[in-house]
Amino acid sequence: MTREHIFEQIRLKKSFLCVGLDTDSTKLPKHLLKHEDPVYEFNRQIIEATQEYCVAFKPNLAFYECDGIKGWQSLERSLRAIPFNCFTIADAKRGDIGNTSTMYAKAFFENLGFDSVTVAPYMGRDSVKPFLAYADKWVILLALTSNEGSADFQLQASGDELLFEKVLRTSQTWGSTDSMMYVVGATQAAMMKKVRAIAPDHFLLVPGVGAQGGSLSETAANGMNKQCGLLVNASRSILYASSGEDFADKAHAEAKKLRDEMSVLLDKYLG
Amino acid sequence: MTREHIFEQIRLKKSFLCVGLDTDSTKLPKHLLKHEDPVYEFNRQIIEATQEYCVAFKPNLAFYECDGIKGWQSLERSLRAIPFNCFTIADAKRGDIGNTSTMYAKAFFENLGFDSVTVAPYMGRDSVKPFLAYADKWVILLALTSNEGSADFQLQASGDELLFEKVLRTSQTWGSTDSMMYVVGATQAAMMKKVRAIAPDHFLLVPGVGAQGGSLSETAANGMNKQCGLLVNASRSILYASSGEDFADKAHAEAKKLRDEMSVLLDKYLG
Repeated sequence: MTREHIFEQIRLKKSFLCVGLDTDSTKLPKHLLKHEDPVYEFNRQIIEATQEYCVAFKPNLAFYECDGIKGWQSLERSLRAIPFNCFTIADAKRGDIGNTSTMYAKAFFENLGFDSVTVAPYMGRDSVKPFLAYADKWVILLALTSNEGSADFQLQASGDELLFEKVLRTSQTWGSTDSMMYVVGATQAAMMKKVRAIAPDHFLLVPGVGAQGGSLSETAANGMNKQCGLLVNASRSILYASSGEDFADKAHAEAKKLRDEMSVLLDKYLG
Repeated sequence: MTREHIFEQIRLKKSFLCVGLDTDSTKLPKHLLKHEDPVYEFNRQIIEATQEYCVAFKPNLAFYECDGIKGWQSLERSLRAIPFNCFTIADAKRGDIGNTSTMYAKAFFENLGFDSVTVAPYMGRDSVKPFLAYADKWVILLALTSNEGSADFQLQASGDELLFEKVLRTSQTWGSTDSMMYVVGATQAAMMKKVRAIAPDHFLLVPGVGAQGGSLSETAANGMNKQCGLLVNASRSILYASSGEDFADKAHAEAKKLRDEMSVLLDKYLG
């Protein structure tokens, strides 16, 4: 999916919401357990309930891998339930030496058909390049993450800048604004301007709104560019809006609420 | 598996060899393709042929994930073929926010039963901690990797040290020498003394001997400690020593050659 196509969907839906499918098989509403594949059934209903309000879906690989083969089956099925006009993100945080990253790229782009994959930058250029070899596929590189541990290395000095700034600056020579996005946590609002000073035109995947406490309006104020340039993720606040039989209705309402806020912000900053 | 148990195996086998199971399903000897699960059959024969000369096996997750459910099945079967006295490493380079790392830990330690998993440090303490919550299981944290891209960030200044030094120093407050190892590439011989200055007692997982060109004798000279403290990995040079029907015999010979070199080095440095 191209950058233009993503922006088109944002304008059509008046939303830059990404729904994170961090589906915990031990936290499903009880009435779903009678299904052959309860994780898939949960995802199918979440996707159906939220697709009009979001432009992207982001399965978190850990939640499928921890159920082994069964989890992988649920993931494959869930992907087939995502409409073609939604951008798909494999939240996998992969990255290894070249021949190994090539295998991960094959797994996520060819076999599972994801549009994008999150990649960790620590191993440098040749660990990221294999993911950039696919046309219209995306690397979403970790820059400044939403968690406390981001202070351990990402916010430490690296020469005369901070490490996440070096990552942003260095990695821009590896790919373009049409093949790379960056992860920047919504909990890092104070740093968003620094990110935009280095990467004004890139799309940013922004986790941390909702359960992690980040602010949507601050994110938009500091992070939005002329093509919106933001995909803001919410996972737990949508998936677990209710643990009962009405989980999909409540997810629908929660996604609509976020879309309505986003619609106002898009009007405010893009006019 | 405890540190003492690993050292005991090293002394018994006179080897600190780890065999990397980076098994590429497209590069298997042709005569194996008649088997129902050729990747498993290949691994089974490699494990049988090399187990007397190695103390660890390291499946590289990318090579299984890229075959989806079939790959996951091959991985599970291959793990069951590894003798109980061999240390197992999930080479997965994972690491995410706490609740997600918890899921990865469950996947690798509980469901697959690995002794250890490789973890990327970029997201900091709370991304690593969940893996350290298991007794007798190990985090193998990326410090200084064997690839060219290690120069992009790991070898850059971070305050008055290099980033990999900061990773080594900071992460030592997260776990002990009984729960953490570090990845240090054999191609980084010049830096091995710096690693040992900060982490004298930790075990190091050392990739990069063989296909990547690192030196075993330099690694031992600069990296060995009084409990050996090294697990040196070889993958392609063993797995693909022959592409014919004699692949297991050739793998056996290649593993024996490395073990014989290691035996001399153990005598030299540990007496």
